[in-house]
Amino acid sequence: MHTGKVWLIGCGPGDMELLTLKAARILQSADVWLVDDLAGKDILTLARADARIVHVGKRGGCRSTPQHFINRLMARYARQGFQVARVKGGDVMLFGRGGEEQAYLHEQGIETGIVNGLTSGMAAATSLGVPLTHRDHCRGVAFVTAHGHDGDEPDWSALARSGLTLAIYMGMKRLDRIRAGLLAGGLSPSTPAAIVQSASTPAERQLLTTLDELPQAASREQLASPAIVLVGTVIGLAGQQMMQSGCNMQVA
Amino acid sequence: MHTGKVWLIGCGPGDMELLTLKAARILQSADVWLVDDLAGKDILTLARADARIVHVGKRGGCRSTPQHFINRLMARYARQGFQVARVKGGDVMLFGRGGEEQAYLHEQGIETGIVNGLTSGMAAATSLGVPLTHRDHCRGVAFVTAHGHDGDEPDWSALARSGLTLAIYMGMKRLDRIRAGLLAGGLSPSTPAAIVQSASTPAERQLLTTLDELPQAASREQLASPAIVLVGTVIGLAGQQMMQSGCNMQVA
Repeated sequence: MHTGKVWLIGCGPGDMELLTLKAARILQSADVWLVDDLAGKDILTLARADARIVHVGKRGGCRSTPQHFINRLMARYARQGFQVARVKGGDVMLFGRGGEEQAYLHEQGIETGIVNGLTSGMAAATSLGVPLTHRDHCRGVAFVTAHGHDGDEPDWSALARSGLTLAIYMGMKRLDRIRAGLLAGGLSPSTPAAIVQSASTPAERQLLTTLDELPQAASREQLASPAIVLVGTVIGLAGQQMMQSGCNMQVA
Repeated sequence: MHTGKVWLIGCGPGDMELLTLKAARILQSADVWLVDDLAGKDILTLARADARIVHVGKRGGCRSTPQHFINRLMARYARQGFQVARVKGGDVMLFGRGGEEQAYLHEQGIETGIVNGLTSGMAAATSLGVPLTHRDHCRGVAFVTAHGHDGDEPDWSALARSGLTLAIYMGMKRLDRIRAGLLAGGLSPSTPAAIVQSASTPAERQLLTTLDELPQAASREQLASPAIVLVGTVIGLAGQQMMQSGCNMQVA
């Protein structure tokens, strides 16, 4: 019997063309796919005709497959000698629980491989036509989740003082707290902010606003998850960008 | 005459398989390539036989092509009707000056497209077998450059207090200052730290150490740019990882 292996594969923000060559190669040869909701649907067209496709969606607030069940499923298929593709959106090593799944599989003595993917925060900035870093604006970018598993939050005040561009994941239900925390930390109410929903996909929607107006504007435009919230002076370049290209971005 | 266009293309950390499908498609059809040093050499094999390849390396401290010359070159080829691929390492929108080049081209009335790439900080973590975020350790990750164009530095103290994993670019000549700043900000001297040089390439080298030992260990092992410095408790998982997989990572 062959030795099985589990590949933890980040499939990027949704546009199938943003898959890496490595991800595409492994997906095309995998025996079994265990697929998250956030992975783009088009990606399934890469599957072998005889590949087994198992959907194991795990979206915040919705019915989902328990993590321990997914873990056992990966291990079982690998023990049966299969090449298993664990298919996730974004990058498995950034808010993807790739580390947890990898640790479980290693405890079980199962070989793993990791394939990075493009995280949706990068795609969101590119959709707006702005860099996440620009040497005139900041020394870097923070990718943070607004949603800790034990309910705790990032230190918004320290993030405000860091001077970094902020790319906030899973923040759509916490816009009031994000706004309050960043204002309390010293960011100006007029700091440019944006939301990009479903970046890189046909369902993409954008909103350009300010930190102060962020919760109201998002509510008015009915933006929802999955979305990335971007905050920082560099995001203000999106306005200039928009005027030059004449695109129909929503400005609140 | 056809209308030219400049594609700003992030080609990832060096491993050609980490190119996106979109980057590969555009590179394969481009008329002209303007190539940075940090883009992997293998990528050149994708060029059309009749494509014009122009090397415009820009590495810190070395002789390099001035930015204004690169800008004019991009614009000139686009005006001649060519599809121009501006080929960079990592992601063009993260420390890649993609925003600056795009702004110049728009001022000149030249159409641009952006293709994200995998940033080397992600590849560095994956090489160590650790996630950059893990819900037991942190709420996110900061990608920062230690090298500001006007000599200023990130607010190391605020970054220390942020509780984020830190992925530091262009830091190899500033390890003493990074160490001092993060310790002053309250990080423990025993905070796990790592350096990954040339992540994802055959020349890759790794070092696992602590924040306190970081400058000395890097010097002893003669690690140098291009490299990513990683700091944070989640990096400590690399030690466990190493023991389980029996890999030959250098531990200082």
